[in-house]
Amino acid sequence: MAGSIYGRLFQISTWGESHGKGIGVVIDGCPAGLPLTEEDIQIYLDRRKPGQSRYTTSRQEGDTAEILSGVFEGRTTGCPISILIRNQDQRSHDYSNIMDSYRPGHADYTFDMKYGFRDYRGGGRSSGRETIGRVAAGAVAAKMLSELGIHIQAYTKAIGPIIVPETDYDFEELYKNPLYMPNADLALEAEAYLKECISAQDSSGGVIECTINGIPAGIGDPVFDKLDASLAKSILSIGAVKGFEIGDGFQAGAARGSGNNDCFRSENGCIQKASNHSGGTLGGMSDGTPIVFRAAVKPTPSISQPQNSVDKNGRDISLVIKGRHDPVIVPRAVVVVESMAALTVADLLMSNMTARMDSLVRFYK
Amino acid sequence: MAGSIYGRLFQISTWGESHGKGIGVVIDGCPAGLPLTEEDIQIYLDRRKPGQSRYTTSRQEGDTAEILSGVFEGRTTGCPISILIRNQDQRSHDYSNIMDSYRPGHADYTFDMKYGFRDYRGGGRSSGRETIGRVAAGAVAAKMLSELGIHIQAYTKAIGPIIVPETDYDFEELYKNPLYMPNADLALEAEAYLKECISAQDSSGGVIECTINGIPAGIGDPVFDKLDASLAKSILSIGAVKGFEIGDGFQAGAARGSGNNDCFRSENGCIQKASNHSGGTLGGMSDGTPIVFRAAVKPTPSISQPQNSVDKNGRDISLVIKGRHDPVIVPRAVVVVESMAALTVADLLMSNMTARMDSLVRFYK
Amino acid sequence: MAGSIYGRLFQISTWGESHGKGIGVVIDGCPAGLPLTEEDIQIYLDRRKPGQSRYTTSRQEGDTAEILSGVFEGRTTGCPISILIRNQDQRSHDYSNIMDSYRPGHADYTFDMKYGFRDYRGGGRSSGRETIGRVAAGAVAAKMLSELGIHIQAYTKAIGPIIVPETDYDFEELYKNPLYMPNADLALEAEAYLKECISAQDSSGGVIECTINGIPAGIGDPVFDKLDASLAKSILSIGAVKGFEIGDGFQAGAARGSGNNDCFRSENGCIQKASNHSGGTLGGMSDGTPIVFRAAVKPTPSISQPQNSVDKNGRDISLVIKGRHDPVIVPRAVVVVESMAALTVADLLMSNMTARMDSLVRFYK
Amino acid sequence: MAGSIYGRLFQISTWGESHGKGIGVVIDGCPAGLPLTEEDIQIYLDRRKPGQSRYTTSRQEGDTAEILSGVFEGRTTGCPISILIRNQDQRSHDYSNIMDSYRPGHADYTFDMKYGFRDYRGGGRSSGRETIGRVAAGAVAAKMLSELGIHIQAYTKAIGPIIVPETDYDFEELYKNPLYMPNADLALEAEAYLKECISAQDSSGGVIECTINGIPAGIGDPVFDKLDASLAKSILSIGAVKGFEIGDGFQAGAARGSGNNDCFRSENGCIQKASNHSGGTLGGMSDGTPIVFRAAVKPTPSISQPQNSVDKNGRDISLVIKGRHDPVIVPRAVVVVESMAALTVADLLMSNMTARMDSLVRFYK
Repeated sequence: MAGSIYGRLFQISTWGESHGKGIGVVIDGCPAGLPLTEEDIQIYLDRRKPGQSRYTTSRQEGDTAEILSGVFEGRTTGCPISILIRNQDQRSHDYSNIMDSYRPGHADYTFDMKYGFRDYRGGGRSSGRETIGRVAAGAVAAKMLSELGIHIQAYTKAIGPIIVPETDYDFEELYKNPLYMPNADLALEAEAYLKECISAQDSSGGVIECTINGIPAGIGDPVFDKLDASLAKSILSIGAVKGFEIGDGFQAGAARGSGNNDCFRSENGCIQKASNHSGGTLGGMSDGTPIVFRAAVKPTPSISQPQNSVDKNGRDISLVIKGRHDPVIVPRAVVVVESMAALTVADLLMSNMTARMDSLVRFYK
Repeated sequence: MAGSIYGRLFQISTWGESHGKGIGVVIDGCPAGLPLTEEDIQIYLDRRKPGQSRYTTSRQEGDTAEILSGVFEGRTTGCPISILIRNQDQRSHDYSNIMDSYRPGHADYTFDMKYGFRDYRGGGRSSGRETIGRVAAGAVAAKMLSELGIHIQAYTKAIGPIIVPETDYDFEELYKNPLYMPNADLALEAEAYLKECISAQDSSGGVIECTINGIPAGIGDPVFDKLDASLAKSILSIGAVKGFEIGDGFQAGAARGSGNNDCFRSENGCIQKASNHSGGTLGGMSDGTPIVFRAAVKPTPSISQPQNSVDKNGRDISLVIKGRHDPVIVPRAVVVVESMAALTVADLLMSNMTARMDSLVRFYK
Repeated sequence: MAGSIYGRLFQISTWGESHGKGIGVVIDGCPAGLPLTEEDIQIYLDRRKPGQSRYTTSRQEGDTAEILSGVFEGRTTGCPISILIRNQDQRSHDYSNIMDSYRPGHADYTFDMKYGFRDYRGGGRSSGRETIGRVAAGAVAAKMLSELGIHIQAYTKAIGPIIVPETDYDFEELYKNPLYMPNADLALEAEAYLKECISAQDSSGGVIECTINGIPAGIGDPVFDKLDASLAKSILSIGAVKGFEIGDGFQAGAARGSGNNDCFRSENGCIQKASNHSGGTLGGMSDGTPIVFRAAVKPTPSISQPQNSVDKNGRDISLVIKGRHDPVIVPRAVVVVESMAALTVADLLMSNMTARMDSLVRFYK
Repeated sequence: MAGSIYGRLFQISTWGESHGKGIGVVIDGCPAGLPLTEEDIQIYLDRRKPGQSRYTTSRQEGDTAEILSGVFEGRTTGCPISILIRNQDQRSHDYSNIMDSYRPGHADYTFDMKYGFRDYRGGGRSSGRETIGRVAAGAVAAKMLSELGIHIQAYTKAIGPIIVPETDYDFEELYKNPLYMPNADLALEAEAYLKECISAQDSSGGVIECTINGIPAGIGDPVFDKLDASLAKSILSIGAVKGFEIGDGFQAGAARGSGNNDCFRSENGCIQKASNHSGGTLGGMSDGTPIVFRAAVKPTPSISQPQNSVDKNGRDISLVIKGRHDPVIVPRAVVVVESMAALTVADLLMSNMTARMDSLVRFYK
């Protein structure tokens, strides 16, 4: 219980530091009989890989997933699935400028406060590379969900001031631009904005939106383990995320009940909602309509311009962070958001199976 | 694991329905030796009590806390603390209009989908009365935190379009107006707005802000159990909350790194931040500055105007919800936000005690 | 997480001290739709009630269960079930002889060491009355299991040196003698032995055996959450239990493989075992044959003869424990063993539903 | 939650199959600052290595531990510690005789019942090799405990009918004989007995005893998470263990209170017990005296003589198990018992730090 285990039934245990020997995850609770290959995982890992465009860092990382256990003859066995991604680039580096100083916007200071010291190499456990374990596990959860007809898709809603309005979504465009934006023109505008940030030795924040389709009604547990609350935690556990909203979110705070309520209506004998201000949940349980949520992502804290800071001994310094860094975190975080959503939904979907006595009777008698 | 247990070390188990025999909570994990009386709990319960102004429902609820266990000679014993609040108003009511129909914006439909049927009396477990158990437990957590110098204060940041800017906060005003707004003039404007909503048979949303002062650096666990992620879950688990943000939150998505990073500086040998865009956390751990977060609260879904809906059998109906309902949830939810924040911080504070080997050595040798 | 919460899916949270206001339990995770009345619970509570024979204490306790939540129109709703048993006898007593002294074989000393002080009235939380919450919850779990064709029966295997051999079991006798022994003659011998203990101001230990019939194959999770391991913990969590064995248990330690292995054989196309040395589990999962386990119960530590002890200040004393005490714990613990077994099996049975992908597909598609 | 995660604060997640790519464990929750090397782990792994005597299998396994994360500059960082042991012998084998048949005393049948199929190579996840992950983690827990002055030692109490009486313990002998028996003469007798078993194509059971010294009073949580109950679960989770007892254990069932109670006495101002029938716990909490418990270990189920069994299709067969197998599990399981005890104690020791308010005040103010 030091924070690197997630889930109650579909549990994952991630590990690894940026410049250690590797990164990985153990999945305990994946049902037996799911077809699974290393390729399934690699596709997800490749989506978070850097070096794919000029707006992501040009470091070369060939993150390759190896399944060490839990899969036999192409199917999961119900036993723990251990996935290992060896770190490639383990040359000794010069860490003298971050070893003893606290980078603004980073966790250097808080790690030292909590643990007394830290693995300072490349950010250690608080590096963005930590998410590799999440994505590897998310790929497995997503595979499981897709077998049940549940599909999760995240995309870039905004980069800095460039926001894609819902009315202009063009999902054909999504994988055609390096920013994962569902609009070609706005993607170009966003690229121009990022170029400007780079030349100003600065970085940009943004917003990721995510939709979940095919989720049956009733998923999520009332009170503390609501579907939306569980999603909020899993999404905010991604390093750079500073906000979460579902459906109308903060707009609902400014709304009136008559405008925010989604009226029910009958359609061919099925109960439907006339709108989806709620974002697909009622009372913390899925209502059978698409889940829609957004995550606010802060700007990359590593910027090239000199910043005021302090060292470990409390002396004021001017800090210049070396190295190549993404000018924006958003595009590479899209698959991380999808992964965390998949893990959350998989977990609640499984616990939902025990909610009714008639399900138990059908299962066991 | 049906969602009514919260926490890992400071664990609470809440129970009770709106029109059942009572509401309550069991706290398992409160440290021994904390001075605690029923009065400590009553103060918190009274803050969420309805009937305090015309903007909260005029139902009379005399929620009185009884401590049944875990306190001896005025101090907690380390054993479970059971707190019971008997429901007063248990007359038989006429539920015919909600028994078989699904109120828009309520959990009637999803409860039926998940469990096959529901306790429809007054909303059952999804009633706002469910929060009584949280608040009773929150009062105990807050008492514990205050002994450690940690203080939590929530307040109304916005009612509909009326927003209190940070520059106009006047905390002297907080308990002087029935809306818990830190600004007398804007509280009057908000009251006027609510009157308008009532006369339009409508309701209003709003925003609650919460600050935590005195929290030491290093609280929160990296990766999945970050302080901000944990707060997000606990706050979104409150029925009407649709969004959560910490520090600059969604504004950070539009910002640049140079503007969003909080530079460190040395002050009398202590490490300080020159600003607090992050809202008091770095890498999911507290950084020693105040925690600041906001929750978006949707408008009360129960409104008096007729709404389109369906009944249990999928027939279209026009539904009129009877009874007295708060035109806005925000003021009564302020103490619920404080309670959930207290429970979250108490829990992470306790697990932090085991983070370092030198702490164990000091404790045991 | 102070030890009073049990279970992962079928979770219970017990509370209450011997001489406090009451004892109770909250069940979170009982499936919706199980028929349940207070009478179902009362039957179990009555089986642990004292004053039923001269071999159980003559205190009069009218433990009456009240269901406060989670049941509506005679069925469980899926929401937490809160059960309250008010303590009747709350007169002020004279605790001067145990307040400051440590009774041998009791938890007085260790409670003081852990928590700094204790509720000394009647043993507080370490009183046998603590088990009331377990039994109330166990009654619900047993009801659920019986709907699935799973039945649990515990009985007295031995009182002191009087042991009922397996070959002499007569289950017709079980409820006819006050000791719950499945043999009339040996029950008389055991009564004679207990009379002797009483006249010697002494007490007796014993052994409880328990069988679980109707459990399907595959229940229990490999590695750490084996069915037998989980039973061991739940049974040893009962105050006076000092040992647990399944199947041949400690005899297996003296056996040879050829005598200990249960050969498989085919019977009408079904796979059966030719013997049941294993006690119904293989690799920690049920194998479809009856589960058989035993619990060693220590003698009642409260005896009337003077004992050497110390007081809180480390002074040697001679302690005489006043009051009426059971000369043997075993008969009243029989239903506690059944209850804990029911809770353990219910929990593992529920998690087993998520073990296979084809189950998920059948459930959701 | 498929059973391969253990612990609440000091959590481990084990993985790996007998003939897969490797075996390993992730530890989440080990405090920061503990000195740790691969050598610390290797010493423990070597103690369970086969091929050390004729009474353990002659297979050559060079299990070598590699620490992949969580250790920096020779100390644990507080982040997850991932330990990998590659399987060496991954040649393709002939599994035709176990692939479709169910070995008596093995988990082949129950794995198929639970998961629908299994990794049949060398026992898959139910192989004794599964314990490698436990031992690697146990080495870390034991290292942590030794820094706090807590030492755990297990040894062979009995092999078949050869039992070492407590009065004849000679711990100097422990590591001098291949059976880890604390008595040279009886070790020779046991060796003779095992030779006899081997020549009869049979195997033997035994008993392991374990003592924990230096544990402070108050460790363990009342009610469900008692120290002894927690040890029972962790020890019975070891594949071949069929019974657990603490202190006098099953003897306590035959005893009288006057003989079973441990009287307290004062010694130089300290509170001591005049005897240790309880095995070091009272009310589920350590009482400051040594913990003493025993585990019954069944005979190796793999024996060379033909056994009646069935195949997957329910046909009766005569099964001959090929390969080299330990004639007794006990000696190699000694270090597994120590490891599980270390993990259990480490976990409860950490949660005990939060039991008292004055501890929190001292820590945070």
